[in-house]
Amino acid sequence: MSKLVYSVSISLDGIVAGPDQSVANPLGVGGLLLHEWMRELAVWRKGAAQEGGLTNASTAVLERNKGKVGAIIMGRNMFGGGPGPWGDDPWNGWWGENPPWHLPVFVLTHYSRTRLDCEGGTSFEFVTDGIEAALKLARAAANAKDVLVSGGGTVAKQCLAAGLLDEIELHLVPVILGAGVRLFDDKAPAAARMEQVDVVEAPGVTHIRYRVRRLAAAAALLSYCRATNSMPTAS
Amino acid sequence: MSKLVYSVSISLDGIVAGPDQSVANPLGVGGLLLHEWMRELAVWRKGAAQEGGLTNASTAVLERNKGKVGAIIMGRNMFGGGPGPWGDDPWNGWWGENPPWHLPVFVLTHYSRTRLDCEGGTSFEFVTDGIEAALKLARAAANAKDVLVSGGGTVAKQCLAAGLLDEIELHLVPVILGAGVRLFDDKAPAAARMEQVDVVEAPGVTHIRYRVRRLAAAAALLSYCRATNSMPTAS
Repeated sequence: MSKLVYSVSISLDGIVAGPDQSVANPLGVGGLLLHEWMRELAVWRKGAAQEGGLTNASTAVLERNKGKVGAIIMGRNMFGGGPGPWGDDPWNGWWGENPPWHLPVFVLTHYSRTRLDCEGGTSFEFVTDGIEAALKLARAAANAKDVLVSGGGTVAKQCLAAGLLDEIELHLVPVILGAGVRLFDDKAPAAARMEQVDVVEAPGVTHIRYRVRRLAAAAALLSYCRATNSMPTAS
Repeated sequence: MSKLVYSVSISLDGIVAGPDQSVANPLGVGGLLLHEWMRELAVWRKGAAQEGGLTNASTAVLERNKGKVGAIIMGRNMFGGGPGPWGDDPWNGWWGENPPWHLPVFVLTHYSRTRLDCEGGTSFEFVTDGIEAALKLARAAANAKDVLVSGGGTVAKQCLAAGLLDEIELHLVPVILGAGVRLFDDKAPAAARMEQVDVVEAPGVTHIRYRVRRLAAAAALLSYCRATNSMPTAS
């Protein structure tokens, strides 16, 4: 069954993108710190047409989704747009003529734009009628493979709040950013409980995969606590 | 060298105690969910004079500090006090006549109180002149062993903000609580960088140990980003 997966690097304080994101600084202030573990890997550098790099326990984590993902959903910021409409001569994003996705990408945006076909099999389709519409298109394009949500939180938070995500991959980086986009903010579904699927310890990062589910038991427990302002007695 | 260690169960949204903590509900609403992994362990149940329980990868994590810790610092809430002064006939806390610590415990409080000596070697000393005073007393009592900060965040956050912690043990529990005491809030030192020491995957929890340090490089990078509102070019 096709899953909707969000994979993201996150700080100890739950930040997935630094503050003051802009075209000049798409990861936000300090956001680069979240991606150091990935940028030093040979497998990542190869995808970005850079030489050298390391192979470590993170390599297999980056590669394990290969072949399983059939389409990608991202926000306009991750594609490369700034605020406002695209203009007459729109920029084609951060990713160059041969973007590293090699898959159909669906960009969630307020501004319509003609589909963009790039070298290497990456296409960008611009979806203006919301996350559920983007997800429908992505699932169709993915051809029964998984759909990956990518980027710094805005789209993923919509998916999380709407109960659409099946799996979350956190790449937990030991830094406190102090400000920025918080993945699990007060709009995240309280009492949502995940199932821990697996953990990979790697240099400078811990990779944890969670299956998203909402246990009736957890919700019931919280309701109990809220109603009585007390805890059940330990059995 | 004696270390100051904070060991805490934390939700995916960074909450270490649920909202509305009270004498009736010391862990706050939903806070019990953070401790399920521990409460089902035989080693924990034994300490709490309960029978049965499991042995799994978390057992060694609970036991690894045994013999290394020489004193404990906690807040008044963890000891067992509610708001306000102690009163004429103060309650002796949650922990019964033979508390599970078997060590000198220093309780940070606004209200002075006579030292309490319990069975089994646990003593409670009540410190009213702040965290650094409590730490000084605890270090002396610990006799070159480590000092453990215990409890739901208030004391630990003071230690973190003051740069006093040497090590943080997070027991990351796959639940979103939505509200409560957030460990790394906007008073946590931004750009503080930890060093990931080790990771233990266990049923329903991931244990990660961090050495606290502030890398000059990280601070410098953030200063650069803030000053220029851009990122350094990748080398």
